[in-house]
Amino acid sequence: MLIVMQKDATPDQVTAVIRAIENRGHTARPIPGGARVSIGVLYNEGAVDASVFHDMPGVKEAIPVTRPYKMVSREFQPHDTIIRVGNVNIGGDHLLIIAGPCAVESEHQVMTIAEHVKKSGGDILRGGAFKPRTSPYAFQGLGEAGLKILAKAREAFGLPIVTEVLDLACYDMVEDYADIVQIGTRNMQNFSLLRRAGESKKPVMLKRGMSATVDEWLMAAEYILTEGNPNVILCERGVRTFVRHSRNTLDLSAIPVVRRESHLPVIVDPSHAAGFRDQVMPLARAAAAVSAHGMMVEVHHAPETAKCDGGQSLLPEQFDQLCRQVRSIFEVSRNAE
Amino acid sequence: MLIVMQKDATPDQVTAVIRAIENRGHTARPIPGGARVSIGVLYNEGAVDASVFHDMPGVKEAIPVTRPYKMVSREFQPHDTIIRVGNVNIGGDHLLIIAGPCAVESEHQVMTIAEHVKKSGGDILRGGAFKPRTSPYAFQGLGEAGLKILAKAREAFGLPIVTEVLDLACYDMVEDYADIVQIGTRNMQNFSLLRRAGESKKPVMLKRGMSATVDEWLMAAEYILTEGNPNVILCERGVRTFVRHSRNTLDLSAIPVVRRESHLPVIVDPSHAAGFRDQVMPLARAAAAVSAHGMMVEVHHAPETAKCDGGQSLLPEQFDQLCRQVRSIFEVSRNAE
Amino acid sequence: MLIVMQKDATPDQVTAVIRAIENRGHTARPIPGGARVSIGVLYNEGAVDASVFHDMPGVKEAIPVTRPYKMVSREFQPHDTIIRVGNVNIGGDHLLIIAGPCAVESEHQVMTIAEHVKKSGGDILRGGAFKPRTSPYAFQGLGEAGLKILAKAREAFGLPIVTEVLDLACYDMVEDYADIVQIGTRNMQNFSLLRRAGESKKPVMLKRGMSATVDEWLMAAEYILTEGNPNVILCERGVRTFVRHSRNTLDLSAIPVVRRESHLPVIVDPSHAAGFRDQVMPLARAAAAVSAHGMMVEVHHAPETAKCDGGQSLLPEQFDQLCRQVRSIFEVSRNAE
Amino acid sequence: MLIVMQKDATPDQVTAVIRAIENRGHTARPIPGGARVSIGVLYNEGAVDASVFHDMPGVKEAIPVTRPYKMVSREFQPHDTIIRVGNVNIGGDHLLIIAGPCAVESEHQVMTIAEHVKKSGGDILRGGAFKPRTSPYAFQGLGEAGLKILAKAREAFGLPIVTEVLDLACYDMVEDYADIVQIGTRNMQNFSLLRRAGESKKPVMLKRGMSATVDEWLMAAEYILTEGNPNVILCERGVRTFVRHSRNTLDLSAIPVVRRESHLPVIVDPSHAAGFRDQVMPLARAAAAVSAHGMMVEVHHAPETAKCDGGQSLLPEQFDQLCRQVRSIFEVSRNAE
Repeated sequence: MLIVMQKDATPDQVTAVIRAIENRGHTARPIPGGARVSIGVLYNEGAVDASVFHDMPGVKEAIPVTRPYKMVSREFQPHDTIIRVGNVNIGGDHLLIIAGPCAVESEHQVMTIAEHVKKSGGDILRGGAFKPRTSPYAFQGLGEAGLKILAKAREAFGLPIVTEVLDLACYDMVEDYADIVQIGTRNMQNFSLLRRAGESKKPVMLKRGMSATVDEWLMAAEYILTEGNPNVILCERGVRTFVRHSRNTLDLSAIPVVRRESHLPVIVDPSHAAGFRDQVMPLARAAAAVSAHGMMVEVHHAPETAKCDGGQSLLPEQFDQLCRQVRSIFEVSRNAE
Repeated sequence: MLIVMQKDATPDQVTAVIRAIENRGHTARPIPGGARVSIGVLYNEGAVDASVFHDMPGVKEAIPVTRPYKMVSREFQPHDTIIRVGNVNIGGDHLLIIAGPCAVESEHQVMTIAEHVKKSGGDILRGGAFKPRTSPYAFQGLGEAGLKILAKAREAFGLPIVTEVLDLACYDMVEDYADIVQIGTRNMQNFSLLRRAGESKKPVMLKRGMSATVDEWLMAAEYILTEGNPNVILCERGVRTFVRHSRNTLDLSAIPVVRRESHLPVIVDPSHAAGFRDQVMPLARAAAAVSAHGMMVEVHHAPETAKCDGGQSLLPEQFDQLCRQVRSIFEVSRNAE
Repeated sequence: MLIVMQKDATPDQVTAVIRAIENRGHTARPIPGGARVSIGVLYNEGAVDASVFHDMPGVKEAIPVTRPYKMVSREFQPHDTIIRVGNVNIGGDHLLIIAGPCAVESEHQVMTIAEHVKKSGGDILRGGAFKPRTSPYAFQGLGEAGLKILAKAREAFGLPIVTEVLDLACYDMVEDYADIVQIGTRNMQNFSLLRRAGESKKPVMLKRGMSATVDEWLMAAEYILTEGNPNVILCERGVRTFVRHSRNTLDLSAIPVVRRESHLPVIVDPSHAAGFRDQVMPLARAAAAVSAHGMMVEVHHAPETAKCDGGQSLLPEQFDQLCRQVRSIFEVSRNAE
Repeated sequence: MLIVMQKDATPDQVTAVIRAIENRGHTARPIPGGARVSIGVLYNEGAVDASVFHDMPGVKEAIPVTRPYKMVSREFQPHDTIIRVGNVNIGGDHLLIIAGPCAVESEHQVMTIAEHVKKSGGDILRGGAFKPRTSPYAFQGLGEAGLKILAKAREAFGLPIVTEVLDLACYDMVEDYADIVQIGTRNMQNFSLLRRAGESKKPVMLKRGMSATVDEWLMAAEYILTEGNPNVILCERGVRTFVRHSRNTLDLSAIPVVRRESHLPVIVDPSHAAGFRDQVMPLARAAAAVSAHGMMVEVHHAPETAKCDGGQSLLPEQFDQLCRQVRSIFEVSRNAE
């Protein structure tokens, strides 16, 4: 934290701020010179509450300086985290492709789609058994029956599975079936759920909140790491902005920022960012071009009948073409770093 | 839903869209005339997935028309909901004032502040025993010990209490102590928690999510009402925007919009919107001026030592002045409606 | 500017940053201690380009510290600027009320509305003769004929007039007729226009850009002051956010922030923020409640026939009620400061 | 426009709305059936003002349906516009690469950079002679001297030049020197400037406003086309959001949306979107991956001494690598469409 004093701040006002810093157990270091005095706050554990100083006489501004996260930081662990799921590496030089339907609807549906995913070279199968829905009147998922269908597809096609957990009540069950447990965008700051994920042995895919900063997202991951689970995959899925032509605005600059700040793998979900099929293909290619560690896309063989997000699901032949494109683009992009 | 066709759409394309609507169980009504054909979708239960039609040949746009909520709507219940807590009416012609510390820190702290709140004419005491914190290293609340302190203050000063519930695991306990259970901004779309709140007899204060539309906020309330609990108080607390001079941007136009759309009472939290003490007073007055049903503000007798949000807490004498101001302003504003 | 080094930055990296600061003509002051080194940049004129340092080896972050504006700052001039127009004070303890139609449509229209404005106690008449319109097919204003009508109304009712200038080409003409020249939201960073306004003797009303920070807004005012015109009135009119229930989101916390940072008067335009009549009244009251120096509202005696923004114009009887309400609220609020 | 009535709207209220539509010269078509009546507005020229109907008794909502633009629309001209500048095609199957310094600083600087741009296969040289700067104290450009330097570089290297015009006063001069005239983000809704651009014979590059919707951006282009200049190149450069890790948030989904809605070529400026060099390369690759028609990037041989935006300028060797990457990625992506 840096506290910037007004130009005409009196020595007494400076002294009062120094005392307030010391009363909170930190070290104050005044920086004289220039047109005004500033005061650095040192040796603080975690973030210092800037608003406390904002209102003291003579203070112009209180500016946070150090980042609040630790274990997720590249300063804490300089080398990339690589997570092994089945025989797939997540976080290294392999472009991870996760694909499948938005929601598990039936065994026939999942088996049909899984076969396409496998054939086109997808690495992992996705599918929701517990669905977070804005409306209580919308389809809420098949629950455990859905998880069983996913497990069957895993056995049949050798694809690990990722599926979403909604709350503490269903965590044990989801953890039993899934290879990767997904925490959705609306739960990014569900701290009890993050703590529970930290006690799990299973890798966690943590989607970015709809209006979360990268700092808040990394702090959410920090909750999981501090409880003992180092296997977190971050997933950018678009943020909410004034823009109306897509469901969300995909924030691709978050990828180089996360790769610079953290050692955790970071992938992209272009389907939920776009909301419309004709935007998903270009955004998925863009994800490979910014050197994300992978992507997760929705695929459906009969999207016009899908119970959820049909309009943003790729057709199997589109997915097939996509896989070839993104692997080429990733190769071209990787050589650049 | 209204589906707008391109100007050069062929009759076959129009027919295909009509068939797709009917296949999903809805009624299609083509609207000829003008420069292009549009097709209305009628008799749908809940929202229709617009993205499904977006990609069909000849379609220009698919536009949602009817609102997805029912029970919270003024069309469903024309008269205002009034909730009785202790001997306070929430939702009528009385301006509700809730005040107290951000977090329960000690019995001495809560009793001191509660006495001030009572003396200045506050209606309800607030205080957090379970705190949602961005950082795992920040103070997380006293838990049940905090709830006991709040209960003691209720007994001493006759003030009903509102306190936040974080997850399913602590709902029973919070419900036992609280007069109103608060669901925080990060949990606005925690659907399991909303369902649990719907099974409760205790009124629920539902804060707006950081980037939730009013529609999504009302849909979250709908989850609670559909489970059987009609006593929901909505609380606007600012939304996330590009603005950096305040913690959030208070969206005061949401108040007349909610009052028009819904019968539920709606209050304002200027403290979390502002983040800085010198903005809290003006925003609290503004809340009364837009005819919100009330407000919730943070008060602390020694904010520079507060474990949480000290910089946005009002001093007792500021709160006292505020109460007089907002009651006058509410009176002036009410006569206007 | 403060440059924060990585924890493991080498002494050579620190030296390189110091040299880069000095090469740009500034003074570098290293701040040792704590877990990492930071380096302050002192004696810089204007803002330092943070991005230059961001990419140097060993640098974690470059954080701007001092504000870039000077003449508009309260540090430069501690007392409030008060602008005298006709016999109205703008910026003092009087709540300024500006009202009138969105666009000048006819002499009859302007005279009818001006009479209502005068009768209800409005201070200044507004009306657009040159209209900035999103669409080239929309009504673009009456031009000089419109200015003449406004001048006639000024003469008839003794109301000073404010009207918008669109470009350099029409500045001389607008300046001849207007008492206050308005620079609209889309022109807030039209720097040639700002410079021209700086050379004028007429007061300028500078509306905030649709997505401008308060800093950028004050910098735009700085352009006017540096050219020699000290009479700038700032006008908050809502910012663009994800919210869809109002045309813009009124950022009322900007009022206390501007009053703290600058000596210039600051008013509110609730009509353009809301976009809907039923939101204008509550937001106008809120403007008085946050102690803005005044407000500008649209009034029309026959809004359903208006050529522009009819749906957000108040009826004369609504305006009359509003004037009484906001003057009461301003009085209640002022005593609080 | 579609006007949705409340469920309990009376026949008289419906009739009143129909009459109001007809009074404004449009055709009203009631759509009975379903749970409520809706009324379509037909045969309107340009946009209908929704706010006028919002407040009528019995009206629930007024929803705009048709897009307000015409000449820029793909419905108006189905085939792509291709603009020929020198021997470069803009808008076809060639990926346009524009590069150069942010600001023209000296002949030596421009000639050095232009040589690099030429050698790496850039198509067009950029450089600002008139600079829009947030601060009046920042470097404002060399003016005509800068334009002469650009013209010299064009002659020496055979690269067409694009440079920004700031206002009406300098349009003639900029037009004389430039091959493409750039209208910057802060001028996107400077309607006088757009009209002047429409009278020019020179192609115009129109950057998206900082918080403009795609509709508003296309309407701005419509101003230019209606005046007679069909050669408009759109340029996406990031929009303002709550995100703080990049200068703006690049909205790449705008590219497929513009390509669907309009026949005009659309390129991407990753430099201004990012603001930091280490984000520019990935975002430039992403621009090629979403099949933009090209990109504009800042290049500087000595960015640490640049007078403007040094921290986001690529080094010549980075630019060289980028050219090879983006041409490969564009090839891979194009085959997909």
